[in-house]
Amino acid sequence: MKTFQREITLPAFPRGFHLITQMIAREMPEISRISAGILHVFIQHTSASLTVNENADPTVRDDFEAYFNQAVPEEEPYFLHTSEGPDDMPAHIKASLMGSSVSIPITKGHVNLGTWQGIYLCEHRDRGGSRRLVVTASGS
Amino acid sequence: MKTFQREITLPAFPRGFHLITQMIAREMPEISRISAGILHVFIQHTSASLTVNENADPTVRDDFEAYFNQAVPEEEPYFLHTSEGPDDMPAHIKASLMGSSVSIPITKGHVNLGTWQGIYLCEHRDRGGSRRLVVTASGS
Amino acid sequence: MKTFQREITLPAFPRGFHLITQMIAREMPEISRISAGILHVFIQHTSASLTVNENADPTVRDDFEAYFNQAVPEEEPYFLHTSEGPDDMPAHIKASLMGSSVSIPITKGHVNLGTWQGIYLCEHRDRGGSRRLVVTASGS
Repeated sequence: MKTFQREITLPAFPRGFHLITQMIAREMPEISRISAGILHVFIQHTSASLTVNENADPTVRDDFEAYFNQAVPEEEPYFLHTSEGPDDMPAHIKASLMGSSVSIPITKGHVNLGTWQGIYLCEHRDRGGSRRLVVTASGS
Repeated sequence: MKTFQREITLPAFPRGFHLITQMIAREMPEISRISAGILHVFIQHTSASLTVNENADPTVRDDFEAYFNQAVPEEEPYFLHTSEGPDDMPAHIKASLMGSSVSIPITKGHVNLGTWQGIYLCEHRDRGGSRRLVVTASGS
Repeated sequence: MKTFQREITLPAFPRGFHLITQMIAREMPEISRISAGILHVFIQHTSASLTVNENADPTVRDDFEAYFNQAVPEEEPYFLHTSEGPDDMPAHIKASLMGSSVSIPITKGHVNLGTWQGIYLCEHRDRGGSRRLVVTASGS
């Protein structure tokens, strides 16, 4: 059993859902040295999140953005935490709905995603800036 | 520390929420050889998902299906990704709301769920077909 | 590689969202002996859950409670599982929306959360009582 861990900084992405699978795999070449294990990706922020979803059609990511904007509206009259702007409190809620980490099996030196799966960075702020991830690969 | 990993194929389930705890435990008998660790279950699809919830009353699973159908309606006028049918884009969103994996402690050779907990397969498509899981048990 | 695991019982919290980061770190001092790994926290219940979110402004937690109460209303006419009270079925749904576990990197003997991140206990019942967690720290 071995563990590899690295902090990586993503460039600023616009608000929305973005595929980052290749970026992560590139930053953690030691995945190739694990025959069976887990890749854990964690985002150190509370207004951006991670999920696994469809990797082919970009309109899926557009529909995610449209859905979550109506499911968690800005300017809800009952929101108290409003000092950082109308996109802030919805961003916190969306982040917990999606989650702060994804974990994916590593099999025979590869991230064992399904054919149509990719890792999404979910940027919930209008100007979230660059985001820090902690990537941990462990296994035998 | 040791790691056991296996890919398993679930039979086709109808749309809805289904208990699969026993099916998973049966496919990974090596859980009995781990005194403290983690069982990780990952689904290799983007329109079905996994969660942990109540294992006793089947109406809980019926209420999940009813709730998510109204929380993520089909035929939203703004959906762009519609070519695979009206149940497809909602299935992607529900899958990310629930998540593509669950991870559960292993304690003294057993999956350490609470008394009322079970693992749900969440089938979000009308005809999702069989689904592939990657199950990883690791620990000492 | 090593694994430390402990079951801990949280005191009863009122319905709502509560920071429990320090409580967990205190119960698992062996985190200091891991240079790179994962802290996994699991809740053995189906009407309370765990998430990672903002650790500073208590109104964020208030807004979470307000948002989830309107997103998953009590007394939905279609709910079948109502025998345990109007707060029960919404609690199950909220629990799966948030999730039954969080996993966070451990780096150089510390839980590697972002500056503004904390672990929330999400108590979805009016009188949930004390809650049991299983905390697992593993790594090298």
